Amino acid sequence: MLLHRISDSAVRRLSHYLRFLDELEAGGSRTVSSDDLAAMGGMTSAQVRKDLSHFGSFGKRGLGYSVPVLREQVAAILGLARRWRVCLVGAGKLGAALYHYGGFHARGFDIVAVFDNDPVRIGLRWGSLRVNDVGDLARVVREERVELGIIVTPADAAQEVADALVGAGVEAILNFAPRKLSLPGEITLRDVNLAMELETLTFALTHRGEILTTR
Amino acid sequence: MLLHRISDSAVRRLSHYLRFLDELEAGGSRTVSSDDLAAMGGMTSAQVRKDLSHFGSFGKRGLGYSVPVLREQVAAILGLARRWRVCLVGAGKLGAALYHYGGFHARGFDIVAVFDNDPVRIGLRWGSLRVNDVGDLARVVREERVELGIIVTPADAAQEVADALVGAGVEAILNFAPRKLSLPGEITLRDVNLAMELETLTFALTHRGEILTTR
Repeated sequence: MLLHRISDSAVRRLSHYLRFLDELEAGGSRTVSSDDLAAMGGMTSAQVRKDLSHFGSFGKRGLGYSVPVLREQVAAILGLARRWRVCLVGAGKLGAALYHYGGFHARGFDIVAVFDNDPVRIGLRWGSLRVNDVGDLARVVREERVELGIIVTPADAAQEVADALVGAGVEAILNFAPRKLSLPGEITLRDVNLAMELETLTFALTHRGEILTTR
Repeated sequence: MLLHRISDSAVRRLSHYLRFLDELEAGGSRTVSSDDLAAMGGMTSAQVRKDLSHFGSFGKRGLGYSVPVLREQVAAILGLARRWRVCLVGAGKLGAALYHYGGFHARGFDIVAVFDNDPVRIGLRWGSLRVNDVGDLARVVREERVELGIIVTPADAAQEVADALVGAGVEAILNFAPRKLSLPGEITLRDVNLAMELETLTFALTHRGEILTTR
């Protein structure tokens, strides 16, 4: 399938559709219209149809979409027709919270290795895993066939860790460290900066009345 | 200042500029060009000039921008010329990780109250705070003059908590619970869904070679 250029926000909307479809399926709904999906997400139905049309047309005019079929198709588009092997670098409080975050496993992400450089943490048992020495990262990442890396280290360690992940064959990185990483163009990188999320709120509050913002 | 409609991604870029300017200031730089800022962020210098021009023109042709002046102006645009009073609802592992996340305090966000509904957690000492009973949310939010709420509850509690926050006067919410919240239009809401962040990676990996993605 050859896709047009898809914006980050369109991918984000697909993730939302998937969650709506999960809810509909859990509630026993068999079909859904683009109007219904739009209402669940605060979007227009034209937007919903346009997003889904990027990937082929699944709905029948007047009949709407089959919930289980569309759910499976949206999941497949997002790459969730299979499970993914993930490692976590940084076994501090945020790393621990992510490790225990149920939403990852439920969606198909299996954390198969955890690393830290702190002797106090190395060797600790986390569920069925032990915290590895980050010095063993290349070997463990290869042995465990890790595909995605999550960086939860302090800012000044993040680039070195990212380089090690890429060197060991990891092709996509989710970075929570507040540092802009420099990576080869073929590596997929996504930054999550928790303070920046709050800044989108303070920006909106500060300019309330001056500005039209989008949800 | 009357602003044009600013996209989420433009606000995000301002947050990035602020971080680059912090680094430059810490490194002793006095001036910076739009080319320098662009290089730090992997953007074009035209994009940088356009973003900054939304808020008035700060640079001098050929001389670039004054780092401390631009830093202060970008911070003010983002609403960071002052500190903000924040509460956290949900004292589980992710709540604890956010509470200890140094990036919030450094950027001007003070967590002044924490809530939970679990008797085991209520009353626990977190730093200088105690975990409050969520039943006391309205009173504590008012007493502590909380302005921003962070929801880190399970999905099925999130809407009720959000309603309580809004009822108590909170005007902006950062929601980590995997549930689409329904809120009055004047409330600023931002969702952080950690599994969705990974889905942007798996989407990109799955469609590699088929698609042009943006960083």
